[in-house]
Amino acid sequence: MSLPTGARPSIAPTREEALGFDRSDPLAGFRDRFVIPTGGPIYMDGNSLGRLPRATVERLRELTLTEWGGRLVEAWEDWIDLPIQVGDRLAALVGAGPGEVLACDSTSVNLYKLAGAVLDASPNRRVLVTDAANFPTDRYVLAGLARSHGVELRSFESDPVSGPSAADVAAAIDDDVALVCLSHVAFRSAALADMIGVTEAVHARGALVLWDLSHSVGAVPVDLNGCGADLAVGCTYKYLNGGPGAPAFLFVRGDLQDSLRPPIWGWFGHADQFAFEDSFRPASGIGRFQVGSPPIAGLAAAGVGADLVAEAGIAALRTKSILATEMMLALYDSTLAPLGVGLGSPRDPRERGSHLSFLHPGGLALSRWLRREAGVVVDFRPPDTIRVAVAPLYNTFAEAWDSVDAMSGGLAEGVHLGPPPAGRVT
Amino acid sequence: MSLPTGARPSIAPTREEALGFDRSDPLAGFRDRFVIPTGGPIYMDGNSLGRLPRATVERLRELTLTEWGGRLVEAWEDWIDLPIQVGDRLAALVGAGPGEVLACDSTSVNLYKLAGAVLDASPNRRVLVTDAANFPTDRYVLAGLARSHGVELRSFESDPVSGPSAADVAAAIDDDVALVCLSHVAFRSAALADMIGVTEAVHARGALVLWDLSHSVGAVPVDLNGCGADLAVGCTYKYLNGGPGAPAFLFVRGDLQDSLRPPIWGWFGHADQFAFEDSFRPASGIGRFQVGSPPIAGLAAAGVGADLVAEAGIAALRTKSILATEMMLALYDSTLAPLGVGLGSPRDPRERGSHLSFLHPGGLALSRWLRREAGVVVDFRPPDTIRVAVAPLYNTFAEAWDSVDAMSGGLAEGVHLGPPPAGRVT
Repeated sequence: MSLPTGARPSIAPTREEALGFDRSDPLAGFRDRFVIPTGGPIYMDGNSLGRLPRATVERLRELTLTEWGGRLVEAWEDWIDLPIQVGDRLAALVGAGPGEVLACDSTSVNLYKLAGAVLDASPNRRVLVTDAANFPTDRYVLAGLARSHGVELRSFESDPVSGPSAADVAAAIDDDVALVCLSHVAFRSAALADMIGVTEAVHARGALVLWDLSHSVGAVPVDLNGCGADLAVGCTYKYLNGGPGAPAFLFVRGDLQDSLRPPIWGWFGHADQFAFEDSFRPASGIGRFQVGSPPIAGLAAAGVGADLVAEAGIAALRTKSILATEMMLALYDSTLAPLGVGLGSPRDPRERGSHLSFLHPGGLALSRWLRREAGVVVDFRPPDTIRVAVAPLYNTFAEAWDSVDAMSGGLAEGVHLGPPPAGRVT
Repeated sequence: MSLPTGARPSIAPTREEALGFDRSDPLAGFRDRFVIPTGGPIYMDGNSLGRLPRATVERLRELTLTEWGGRLVEAWEDWIDLPIQVGDRLAALVGAGPGEVLACDSTSVNLYKLAGAVLDASPNRRVLVTDAANFPTDRYVLAGLARSHGVELRSFESDPVSGPSAADVAAAIDDDVALVCLSHVAFRSAALADMIGVTEAVHARGALVLWDLSHSVGAVPVDLNGCGADLAVGCTYKYLNGGPGAPAFLFVRGDLQDSLRPPIWGWFGHADQFAFEDSFRPASGIGRFQVGSPPIAGLAAAGVGADLVAEAGIAALRTKSILATEMMLALYDSTLAPLGVGLGSPRDPRERGSHLSFLHPGGLALSRWLRREAGVVVDFRPPDTIRVAVAPLYNTFAEAWDSVDAMSGGLAEGVHLGPPPAGRVT
């Protein structure tokens, strides 16, 4: 999509102007679709854990009391389809077709299943490739597979702000590469990868590409089939608001499915699960990527979250996300940059996702002060990165304005100079 | 444990007598701790999906509204410990110590992680062993590992009713065996394995043993450490009443943990997860067997279920289970056997778990008639097995009596002679 004309404020808006943006926000009504306790903090951490949709409360109540409590094992007649059915609802958000997405397991386990399947199907290609700045669990999963399969894990460097380019990828790969695994939106910088260019570069070498959509699904347009992407994984608890530890998803391009076989052979991936056959025969299609009993409550909640995003529409969400992050960027220029804060995200909104990263050596202490004292929830990634996310379904422009204002206020007070308050989860 | 003296009825009790057993049942009060809709069916399928505890409704409401909705990402300060904390509560039910059990993933994925870790740690032992009648997903997971690691999966035959004996296991293994994987209670016959004898036989060959506790945890005493068991997995949605697709668990004997490394390297298994280090360093202890984000709602529900079982006490649950299945067996002898129904479970209650299997060529039609027409929920396993389970936390003796009575009534009417009603999940 292109940037809306005139979207970028030429000077930092006032708080009154931010309130004006909220009054004219076509998505403003979606905020009421979430449980937002009165007097609670400003929540700019939807890129870590999204808020609770009101409809989820009702859906979980129905699932628990009516389905589990009332129908008991008979409810499996409906539940058994949930991984594929929720997958189809997710598919519509990522440019995939029905039967190409499955909701199941965790992102890490799904990455293992897909990357392991590619290695098994590509005995003559002995290299996995990723960006050295990719999210740790992605790199760990690939490192484990590289070790067990006796192949090379090749990590390439890229610009820490703009992320890996198609040229970086092209330079890192050769005809020995089986799979390139990258994040669509970088967890640290929010850099948005060139999915078309990278996919072309990978395919030019005969390799496959796997996209981690955790930080892009629900926040930026994703067009897997339009780009010819092969594989993808992602989580549902960030911009999709599926809840803590909600099931992840995986995508396998339709014409690739029956040539890949995940390394974990479980009964839910069997062609005839309830025949209890002696041997494993993988199901045809996306179902073969299932393993064990699906987490029904989590799937139900993930489905509600996906439906809310679909109702709002990715294009409208993206427009609001760009406007709000552009506003924060203008405020950054006028208030945070003079205080020594660096910008860790791309300046061009077409090149980033829905959060901004601010860099400061006292970032840990500042981020905890923001949570504990200023009522602004952001998160911190070592050594120096504060991430401030706009979740366009529920964040207001005023919240985005107040967040940057709180940061500059805290820095002016010197809250970053003391030791950070205790805490284990950053 | 030994069978209570005089527990076995010498002749089949009347329904009045069954009602008398209920009046003197010390666990009778636990039935009210579950959501049991008025007018609902007799539910004898707790070995497939356990009922909904009332406390779970409250706990899920608190988790959703107060923790997720209210505390948002800050609640991870507490959630992050749930896999180990719920694991510790499960450990008390299976004779394991604190820090030896982890609640996570599905049973199939956990089996893959543990069996894969054993193969990686035992390069000179190239055989996996299981019982040919073990639950399909266990055999499928092991078959997948055997294929990927180029090792042999050796399946041995055992008596279909009494299950694998220690002698069967001893005869099937040699010094090439890395791991023997068996179910503690067989999913089909309910045969209870000799955990002490089998573990000794396996250790005598220098191999490790992995027990699938899915059909025993919460229903029969399990003493992993007392038996010197090495590894175990199990699910929480049967006798533990954790809900559909609730997270499974895994056990690794304490002194074995740091010598095993699961094949899936995820960020939750890292020694310092939030340091976002470049390389994977496995955590010390049971934490290294985690992979991705834990399913928080499922863990919370599993914890409630485990606590209910602990409150009732395994010994009391086992006593009631034996009394009720013995009563059903006496009714079987007097009413079902004359109608041509076979017994697919051991006669000696010390040698079986908490369900009875009845064999009949028209079992599928009969089981569906029981569900649809007679208001008795049992399940069917092809080709001919109807399983009737006693979940001693909530089933009454009268329900057990009525279930067998309904079966003999249906058979007398000939309901098994027609085609089975449609249905996908049996």
